[in-house]
Amino acid sequence: MCTKSRFVEWENYPDKKAAAHKILTSQTFPPNPEFQLGPIPGTNPVLPGTHWKMWHHAVGGELTDIPDDSWATVLKEKHPDMLHLLQFPYNGEPPKRLVTDKAITPNSLHFVRNHGGIPLIDKDKFSFTMDGLVAKPREYTLDDLMDESRFPRMEKTITIQCSGTRRIEQILLYPGQGDEVPQAPWAEGAIGTASYVGISLKKVIKECGGLINGAKHLEFYGADTYFKDDKVMNYLVSVPWSKVKANEVMLAWEMNGEILPAIHGYPLRIVVFGYIGARSVKWLYRIKAIKEPSRAPVQSQEYLYFPQQVGKHNFKLTDGIQIQEMPVSSAIMSPWTKQVCIHNGKIRCKGWAYSGGGRWPERVELSADGGFNWYTIPLENLSKKRKWTWRTWEYELPCDVEGWVEIVCRCWDSALNTQPTFIRTAWNWGLHVTHSCHRISVYSVNKTRKATQDRLKEFEQAGIPFGPITVPLAFPSQSWDDYEKFWKEHDPRDAEDD
Amino acid sequence: MCTKSRFVEWENYPDKKAAAHKILTSQTFPPNPEFQLGPIPGTNPVLPGTHWKMWHHAVGGELTDIPDDSWATVLKEKHPDMLHLLQFPYNGEPPKRLVTDKAITPNSLHFVRNHGGIPLIDKDKFSFTMDGLVAKPREYTLDDLMDESRFPRMEKTITIQCSGTRRIEQILLYPGQGDEVPQAPWAEGAIGTASYVGISLKKVIKECGGLINGAKHLEFYGADTYFKDDKVMNYLVSVPWSKVKANEVMLAWEMNGEILPAIHGYPLRIVVFGYIGARSVKWLYRIKAIKEPSRAPVQSQEYLYFPQQVGKHNFKLTDGIQIQEMPVSSAIMSPWTKQVCIHNGKIRCKGWAYSGGGRWPERVELSADGGFNWYTIPLENLSKKRKWTWRTWEYELPCDVEGWVEIVCRCWDSALNTQPTFIRTAWNWGLHVTHSCHRISVYSVNKTRKATQDRLKEFEQAGIPFGPITVPLAFPSQSWDDYEKFWKEHDPRDAEDD
Repeated sequence: MCTKSRFVEWENYPDKKAAAHKILTSQTFPPNPEFQLGPIPGTNPVLPGTHWKMWHHAVGGELTDIPDDSWATVLKEKHPDMLHLLQFPYNGEPPKRLVTDKAITPNSLHFVRNHGGIPLIDKDKFSFTMDGLVAKPREYTLDDLMDESRFPRMEKTITIQCSGTRRIEQILLYPGQGDEVPQAPWAEGAIGTASYVGISLKKVIKECGGLINGAKHLEFYGADTYFKDDKVMNYLVSVPWSKVKANEVMLAWEMNGEILPAIHGYPLRIVVFGYIGARSVKWLYRIKAIKEPSRAPVQSQEYLYFPQQVGKHNFKLTDGIQIQEMPVSSAIMSPWTKQVCIHNGKIRCKGWAYSGGGRWPERVELSADGGFNWYTIPLENLSKKRKWTWRTWEYELPCDVEGWVEIVCRCWDSALNTQPTFIRTAWNWGLHVTHSCHRISVYSVNKTRKATQDRLKEFEQAGIPFGPITVPLAFPSQSWDDYEKFWKEHDPRDAEDD
Repeated sequence: MCTKSRFVEWENYPDKKAAAHKILTSQTFPPNPEFQLGPIPGTNPVLPGTHWKMWHHAVGGELTDIPDDSWATVLKEKHPDMLHLLQFPYNGEPPKRLVTDKAITPNSLHFVRNHGGIPLIDKDKFSFTMDGLVAKPREYTLDDLMDESRFPRMEKTITIQCSGTRRIEQILLYPGQGDEVPQAPWAEGAIGTASYVGISLKKVIKECGGLINGAKHLEFYGADTYFKDDKVMNYLVSVPWSKVKANEVMLAWEMNGEILPAIHGYPLRIVVFGYIGARSVKWLYRIKAIKEPSRAPVQSQEYLYFPQQVGKHNFKLTDGIQIQEMPVSSAIMSPWTKQVCIHNGKIRCKGWAYSGGGRWPERVELSADGGFNWYTIPLENLSKKRKWTWRTWEYELPCDVEGWVEIVCRCWDSALNTQPTFIRTAWNWGLHVTHSCHRISVYSVNKTRKATQDRLKEFEQAGIPFGPITVPLAFPSQSWDDYEKFWKEHDPRDAEDD
């Protein structure tokens, strides 16, 4: 078994689990903060994760320092401008302007959706176990896995997406499940693309003599501690053997040419191609071959895609589809909603498009009229086509009209799937899989128009900023002579009865 | 001329105006608070009107105490639960639950949209002047006007609506002109119905020998002080003679059987039937017959209805239609948006419907599916039909589905006009005339459904409130036996390749 450094292995220690459960049930914790019905906090971190911090302190022992340690790791490993949706367990995404800045996401900017504190693992004391329904259960050091004479090396560029991406759009219109940890209010940045180095899980299972006794699923054990219903446990999920067999599940120790960062799973993580990020377990210390999908809570009770009419008042877990592959989606990363765009007849737009399950973006389209007419983004404006990655894009979107316009983005993937039209179409209680056409409202100011050009000049000459647009006028928009002239030349306001 | 008590007559004193202008231009005032792009403040008063208070204090003299005096009048005359959109000048509407509680609005609950401080006028020193282009200009005391041998008494039930009603819906989607005084963030309550006693303005003009020299408009002078572009003035607007001639403009001194409250214009106000409230000048002390519509700022620069593509970047005043009659509109006052509705297959709804210009609501309809299908509210569920008033209504709206539903209301008036479909359809820079179909999202929980009934019982037995819906589950929604049973009886999550 793995040797602990700064984390707890719970699954082999039912007594420790029972002790923690006893502590958690004997204490009262304050109610969860409500963040969906009021305005989402404008702070950064957005949500603190107070409950989880308190639970860690209550259980104590090795867990006591984990909230502070984890935050220190965030500050050390991530970009200073990250948007921290949840401080602990850490959930963060890059600021909007940097999400698609590069087609391969730098490690410091890659989104992080952790379910527990960050385990600090000593590589030299680390081992990984393959057991359960395999012919020859085995334990491996990292050096064993890196031994190219035993396992062929694999390098893959993979987009990982959280099923919570763009959740904020659902929350703002139709609030749902409001637990702060499973439901962090993600924007469009809970997606990232990196090149991983490692080995195929299939080869490891082969070396262990293959699956036996009807095993059909592989359960991954992460060293992070998860809390659910006053119980503690390690982070556990599973994927079907069919996925592993296709060489689409990787054990990885390198990310974009660097040793895997602690926050991303050092020393060893799973990368499941084309599945939601929740299956790509970090700080992997064990894989168990099993017959049924994992019954652990992350697999059986969370990441479920419910029908639209199901909620706290009537749902059963089995009403939800366990989320594995993500459907086709896209997002506009620039401009931002409610921004004033002063342009020359074209608004410069940037964004991403992605489809799960090894389907890829074939066509990306933009509309400047709410989705009535669409411009196809030329292929040369899309980043490289790959089986398992997003494509970033940019485009000068023609826009003649002025005032509030609605820019909409949609993608067609290689199987010709496209996105639902409205948030409404795909709302679900768990607020997952927000993949409707991405819509933003921007205020268009077209400098190629004479009246606008003249008006902008007035602002420029007065040295007064034009925006925000709600700020009252700095000077009149029409002279009184002009006003009187208009009424001499036109019918009066009220029609006469002659 | 009128004798002052606690107000200033500016229009006959250019020197006083010039002095005030000098004071206002020699000082710097802090920028207007931005309230549209962030969350609207959750305070009550919502906006303080800091600028206007400072301007009053800067000009000083008779204006110094007006902000405090006015607020004292609000507290004395209005219902303690009023929603104060703007503290000074006072803008307030009844709380949602009371807007349509009675078909005739009690005085203490009638909305108030003041443009200046509340003048405190001594009735005994009060006089009213009719001048300008009339054959025999005259001055009247209140007793003169009340002399039934000279002027036949008139009693009319009239709905007055502010063109800002429901503005908050425009602001939340598409911010616009953001001056806090002309643009208070009204909800659905800036409308009220009262019975007024007074006389027809037409009779007064007749007594003054009629209009002469091509006069076609009547300009009303209010004793309140208005500020615009560093200038002070009385509140001035006009209506066309055609409106007066039809006996649709009244001088009123009584409201719902009581002496006109100070906040509503004591001792004398104008009531223009079927026009926006801005024309029904309060604290009336003068009417001037003129040739052209008033050039005063409220008439010429505000209450303009602009095309959708016009804004700070390109508009001219003459692009806007001066708002007189309001178009057909309606609002749902109960339930409220984002409310959880636990019902027995029908959701109880209440609201109002109104049309300006002497058209009246003929049909009111509700939809529980976002406006796809409509239920007509039976006529017996509508309040009395009158030429110049709203109709309040209530209805048990059938709703079978559970989850977020969109309830929509629309009215067809006597000329068969109906409301635009979406906010988007009628957005305008001045954020006036929000008359699109009123849409609210409510979370439907249908107790006639078995699963819901059982689940609600669980909450009841545990003594835990069901809402807010975002609050995490208090107990599991499905037993593990049930979960395992489901998976024995159904296909596994991932299809097998057999």
